[in-house]
Amino acid sequence: MHRPVALAFDVGGTAVKAAVVDGGAVLHERTVPSRRGPAILDVVAETARELLAELDPDQQVQGVGVAMPGLVDAERGICVRSVNLGITDLDVAGDLGRRLGLPVRVGHDVTTAGSAVHRAAGVVDPVVVVLGTGIAAVAYVDGRPVPGVSGQAGELGHLVVRPGGPVCACGARGCLEAVAGAGAMTRRYAELTGRTVDGVAALVVRRETDAVAAAIWEEAVSALADALVSVCVLLAPGALVLAGGLSESGELLRAPLHRLMVERSRIATVPPVLVSELRSRAGLIGAAELALAAGEGLRA
Amino acid sequence: MHRPVALAFDVGGTAVKAAVVDGGAVLHERTVPSRRGPAILDVVAETARELLAELDPDQQVQGVGVAMPGLVDAERGICVRSVNLGITDLDVAGDLGRRLGLPVRVGHDVTTAGSAVHRAAGVVDPVVVVLGTGIAAVAYVDGRPVPGVSGQAGELGHLVVRPGGPVCACGARGCLEAVAGAGAMTRRYAELTGRTVDGVAALVVRRETDAVAAAIWEEAVSALADALVSVCVLLAPGALVLAGGLSESGELLRAPLHRLMVERSRIATVPPVLVSELRSRAGLIGAAELALAAGEGLRA
Repeated sequence: MHRPVALAFDVGGTAVKAAVVDGGAVLHERTVPSRRGPAILDVVAETARELLAELDPDQQVQGVGVAMPGLVDAERGICVRSVNLGITDLDVAGDLGRRLGLPVRVGHDVTTAGSAVHRAAGVVDPVVVVLGTGIAAVAYVDGRPVPGVSGQAGELGHLVVRPGGPVCACGARGCLEAVAGAGAMTRRYAELTGRTVDGVAALVVRRETDAVAAAIWEEAVSALADALVSVCVLLAPGALVLAGGLSESGELLRAPLHRLMVERSRIATVPPVLVSELRSRAGLIGAAELALAAGEGLRA
Repeated sequence: MHRPVALAFDVGGTAVKAAVVDGGAVLHERTVPSRRGPAILDVVAETARELLAELDPDQQVQGVGVAMPGLVDAERGICVRSVNLGITDLDVAGDLGRRLGLPVRVGHDVTTAGSAVHRAAGVVDPVVVVLGTGIAAVAYVDGRPVPGVSGQAGELGHLVVRPGGPVCACGARGCLEAVAGAGAMTRRYAELTGRTVDGVAALVVRRETDAVAAAIWEEAVSALADALVSVCVLLAPGALVLAGGLSESGELLRAPLHRLMVERSRIATVPPVLVSELRSRAGLIGAAELALAAGEGLRA
């Protein structure tokens, strides 16, 4: 009896997450540094070979799912453009398929994560919010994600919530991401204290005894609350579901966020705010679902 | 040969617009003052009787369409709640139907206007922006409006664009409506100059020779640009289509609005910005379409 598994990759600008996904279980998970340019595919291919070498004898790989950042043509398996990775028109599915001899499916990272979160959360027409170095959102309407023209909807991180505020990587001032993005928070901590902090999770822990960490965290939650009130004003979603790295903070994030939203929202009804059980693994699970769905397509 | 016409009403907090709509033509148009409470139906019924008395002999009324503000149950023809009109659970369709002996269809004012604008504009998945005393938006996805949970989506006027800014009727500070709503603009002019201005159209004309009027207009266009950039960031619409009273300014509004959006938008692509040819009559035309569609339903 063979068990169908997928190799899943969640490719980011800083790191690539990889795992074998067997049913709902994430196995052999690892995180390796990204590389810029087409060399990102060397990272994925090499990690894929390591994962293949670790499979149990009864596990049968159905395929490879890759969640890519930037502008993605999922149909053709191409990453059209990622500024963070420095790539243009990279044939992810074709190149990896040839190297690994396996079917490869490619998805947009946020859409892919959102899809997994949406399925797992089982709520009607939520907005799924993926919180990491970048911040993005997928709105569901009538059970389907809203891609926008050219798939460019959901750039929640670039909603201006603090006009005249900190400069964002995009060039604008006061974007949500420049206040509440994981990278912005840890950079700000280093600027203010001269000390580094190992990721946003460490910053969250440190906030109990460190006033600077506490202030950065509070401002991030406050900015996120403002942005999500705007989302509710415009879209009136059935729920807000939090995923991505920052969602690992769980109730520490969810409770004050929800409280601030209720305090500040006048016209919009604040829907339930939930933390996805997939948290920072949403992209990986979504990538695996892509690969397994393709496998079913092949067998059908 | 009888020509099918509709009686159309666009009910607002300040005024009720009414007309006979014959094909695309708006005839016998008039604007009468609103009344608070259930007496608003007296205003509609009385005006309906006047319009009926003015019909040509070959015009045959198919029905009555009423666009209502607030929270509307279109299915049951009820205005569930309108703060501006001071009504709760008002049976608009039932009451007017009995008084007039005609089929009455009720719609939400913004949705109804948006529907007419969307049909007339013929663009793919726009956001229709209705600019008046209130400001609201209807987003189209896959050709259908996004109602949100309980139909509460699209409250664009309550997007906070000037944190800490002027107090809005909703109680929050810095809402778009508190800067760029027609009422807010004329009130602000009176506060600053001690003189009144007869509507926002007069303010727009006066801005050429009056620095205060010019500053209020520029700040309104600027705030609207910021709000619409946020809409593009979140939804990536195929077009923005402007309707409502303020859209009567036409190119005077459209050109600087589009220029500011392009200047300020970093991540989001700014789609075409269009002025609906229906302008301030969008609600009337939409209400007429409701009535005529119901008439077709009856005949089918």
